[in-house]
Amino acid sequence: MISITELNKILQSKFQNNKTEKINLNDAFSRVIAEDLYSNIAVPPYNKSNMDGFAVSEKLDKYVLIDEVHAGDNRDLSIRNNECTWVATGAKLPEGTNYIIPIEYLGIETEEMVNYIKNNGNTIILNLNEEENHILRNSYLPNNPFEENHIVKKGIDIEEGQLLLKKGTKINERNVGLLASSGVNELNVYSLPKVGIISTGDELKLINDVNSKTIGNMVKKAGCEPKFLGVSKDDFAELRNIVKTALNEYDVVITSGGVSRGKKDFTKRVIEDLGSVLMHRAKIKPGMPILLGEAIDENNICKPLICMPGNVTSCVIIAQVVVYPFLKSLMHENLNKNIRQFKISEELYSQFDRTIYMPVKIENGVAYPTFEGSNMIKSVAYAEGLVEITDDKKYDKDELVDVWMF
Amino acid sequence: MISITELNKILQSKFQNNKTEKINLNDAFSRVIAEDLYSNIAVPPYNKSNMDGFAVSEKLDKYVLIDEVHAGDNRDLSIRNNECTWVATGAKLPEGTNYIIPIEYLGIETEEMVNYIKNNGNTIILNLNEEENHILRNSYLPNNPFEENHIVKKGIDIEEGQLLLKKGTKINERNVGLLASSGVNELNVYSLPKVGIISTGDELKLINDVNSKTIGNMVKKAGCEPKFLGVSKDDFAELRNIVKTALNEYDVVITSGGVSRGKKDFTKRVIEDLGSVLMHRAKIKPGMPILLGEAIDENNICKPLICMPGNVTSCVIIAQVVVYPFLKSLMHENLNKNIRQFKISEELYSQFDRTIYMPVKIENGVAYPTFEGSNMIKSVAYAEGLVEITDDKKYDKDELVDVWMF
Repeated sequence: MISITELNKILQSKFQNNKTEKINLNDAFSRVIAEDLYSNIAVPPYNKSNMDGFAVSEKLDKYVLIDEVHAGDNRDLSIRNNECTWVATGAKLPEGTNYIIPIEYLGIETEEMVNYIKNNGNTIILNLNEEENHILRNSYLPNNPFEENHIVKKGIDIEEGQLLLKKGTKINERNVGLLASSGVNELNVYSLPKVGIISTGDELKLINDVNSKTIGNMVKKAGCEPKFLGVSKDDFAELRNIVKTALNEYDVVITSGGVSRGKKDFTKRVIEDLGSVLMHRAKIKPGMPILLGEAIDENNICKPLICMPGNVTSCVIIAQVVVYPFLKSLMHENLNKNIRQFKISEELYSQFDRTIYMPVKIENGVAYPTFEGSNMIKSVAYAEGLVEITDDKKYDKDELVDVWMF
Repeated sequence: MISITELNKILQSKFQNNKTEKINLNDAFSRVIAEDLYSNIAVPPYNKSNMDGFAVSEKLDKYVLIDEVHAGDNRDLSIRNNECTWVATGAKLPEGTNYIIPIEYLGIETEEMVNYIKNNGNTIILNLNEEENHILRNSYLPNNPFEENHIVKKGIDIEEGQLLLKKGTKINERNVGLLASSGVNELNVYSLPKVGIISTGDELKLINDVNSKTIGNMVKKAGCEPKFLGVSKDDFAELRNIVKTALNEYDVVITSGGVSRGKKDFTKRVIEDLGSVLMHRAKIKPGMPILLGEAIDENNICKPLICMPGNVTSCVIIAQVVVYPFLKSLMHENLNKNIRQFKISEELYSQFDRTIYMPVKIENGVAYPTFEGSNMIKSVAYAEGLVEITDDKKYDKDELVDVWMF
C-alpha cells in the first residue's frame, strides 16, 4: 500500500490540464489566466488634475481665464504665460500646465466660482492671506500654492506596455481593476475540469445515495461544475458502460463504492477492462480502499478515474484530501490549506505507518473528534476540519494540533 | 462624520432579508437554510451487516444455511435456532439475527464460499483453530466469533425525527450528506440578494470604468450575482432615471462616483430626490466620501443605496469593509474574517479618530503597505489583505499586526 502523499503525487503528476479558453473580463472572477497580461495603454492616459482649480504654466499671482475643462472633455488645449483654464478634478490638462492652483487659494468655495469670474472680468487673483484662507485650505494644503503641483501624471498608475498579471494568476476583486483600467476585455484562462460522478451499489435501491451529493458539493467548493451521471447496479456490464460513456465527456470521472474485495466489487475489474489501475488501497484511515485508474477516451486522451470508497464518511474525507487538491492542481491553483491550531480534547495517534484523518468540531478553542465509524455520515457532517496524524505520531490530550479547516 | 462601525450598523440593522425560496438539494451548495430540517426516516432504515458472513440467532458452532441476502435485497426474512443466512456487507438482516459470523471464522476466503457450501451440503461449521485462521482473521477480529456482533443498528447514524440542521446553517460538502441520507430533496433557503451596479462620471467617456468590475467581483466573492446597469453621465436626470429603475429590480443598488462635493456630484441630490440620505462621509481612509441612502420602490419596499467613492482604490476597500459584510448579513452568513498576523514593514498610525485601511502585500511573513494614492488601482491590485488602524493607534515597524486577508 502507498501513502497519501504518494497517491496525490501519482494523480497530480500524471494528469495535467493545459486546455485554455478565451473569456470576457466580466466572466473572469476566480479564473486563472493562462498568459502574461500587459497593458496597451497608460493609466491615466493623460496628465490630469487632482483638484478643482486652475491649470497654469508659470508662477504668477494673477491669471487670465481662457477656458474651462471638465472630466470627459477630450480637447487638446494649451496654455502659456499668464493664461489659465478652470480644471475640474480628473480633467485632462492643457499642454503647458505646470501647476494646478486649487480654488481654495482664491479664498472662495467652489460654489462661488461662477460669480467670482463674472465679477472679476475673467481675471483670477490669488489670495494668500493665511488667516482668511486657512479654514478653506484645511491643513492639507500648504501656504505656498506652488509647493505641490496637484498633477496626476500620465501613466503614474499603469505604464503603457507594463506587465499587469503573470500567467497563473487568479482573478479576484482587486486585480480585475488592473485589467479593467487597462482596457483588457478578453483573456485566456485555463479551462475548468469537467467532472462526472457515478454512484454504484445495489444497496442504493434501498437507501439514499449520499456520496454523489457530498462529492458534487466538494467539486463545487473547488470551483468546478459536477455532473451526476446516475447510479450503477453492482453489475460489470452496466458499470463498464456508464464509465466508458463518462470518459468521453468528462475530464475527471469519479465513482464511489465497489472498491472493496467482495465478489460484487466490480469497480477494479471495470477499470482493468477499460484501462489500467494506477493504485489500489492506501495507508490512510478512513478511506483505505481508494482506487485510482486511467483510461483512454475515444479521442485518445488519457483520463483519470478516481474510485472512492462507498462508506459515506470515508468518501467525504477522500474527497477533501485527494479530489479537492487534484482539482485545484488541474485548475492551476495553489491548495492554500487553511490551517488553524487548537487544543485536542483527547489523545490521538496513528499506527502501522497509516495517516489518520480525524474530523473535528471546534468548541471554545478545543478540537473534539467527531468520528464514530466510516459508514456513518454523522462522523463528518458536523465537523469543521481534519487533524492529520502521520508517521505513527501521537498527540496527547490538550496538546496543540494543526487543524486543516474544511 | 460617523465611524465605520456605526456605518455598518446602520446598514445592517436597517436592511434585512427574509425572502426565502424552495430549492432542490442539488442546488443547495453554500445556501443558508431558512428552516430547521428534520429526518423523516431512520438511517440505516434496517439493521444491516457490517461484514461478509452469516447471520445467526444463537451461539452455536454449526448452522444450516437457508438463504442468502445481498445488498439491495428488501425481503423480510427471519431465522431461528440453528438457521443462518449468508449476508453481504450492507445487507438487510433477517429478523432474529443476533450475530454476524464473518466468513473468516470458517477458515476460508470469500471466493471459496460457493465451493464450501456445495461440499458441505448447506452446513456451516465454525473453524476456530487459531493458528490456521489468525492470518485470515487479521488482527481486527477477536478469537471469539460472538464477541462483536457486527450488526449496524437501524437508526444508529440518524434517528427518525432527529433534528439534522438548524435554521441558519450553510450547506456544505459535509452536512449535505445528512440531508441526502435522510432523503431531504427540497429545502427552504434564504434568497440571494440581487445587486445592481451603476457607474457614474463624465470621465468614463475618456477612461475605462474600473469600479463596476471590482464591485461586481466583490459581489461574486460574497456569493451573489451582480448585474451591471451601465454608466451614467454626471447628469441629474440621467442618474435619477437609472437609479429609479434599478430600485424596482434589485435588492441592493450600488453606485460609484459623484459623492464628493463638487458641482458635478449629483449622487446625493438624486438620493434626496428619490428617498433620503442615511449618512454621508465617514471617518475612514480611504473612502471618506461614502454615502448611504434608502428609497421606496414601486412595490413599497424600502431598498438600500450604497454610493461608493469614485476613486478606484477607495472603491475596492469600501467594497471589502462595507459591501461584503452587508451582503453576508443579507445572506444570513457570518462574516468569518480571515485574520492572520504578520510583522509590519513600516510604522503605521491613524489620526483624528479615523480608521485607516492599509492594503498590504505579504512577503516572507512581513506585511508591506501597497497604498500609493486612492485614485490608483495599483494601491490595492496586488494587495493580499488590509490592516485596520483605529482609535489613533500606532504600530511600530516590525510590530505584529492583524491582517484581514481578502
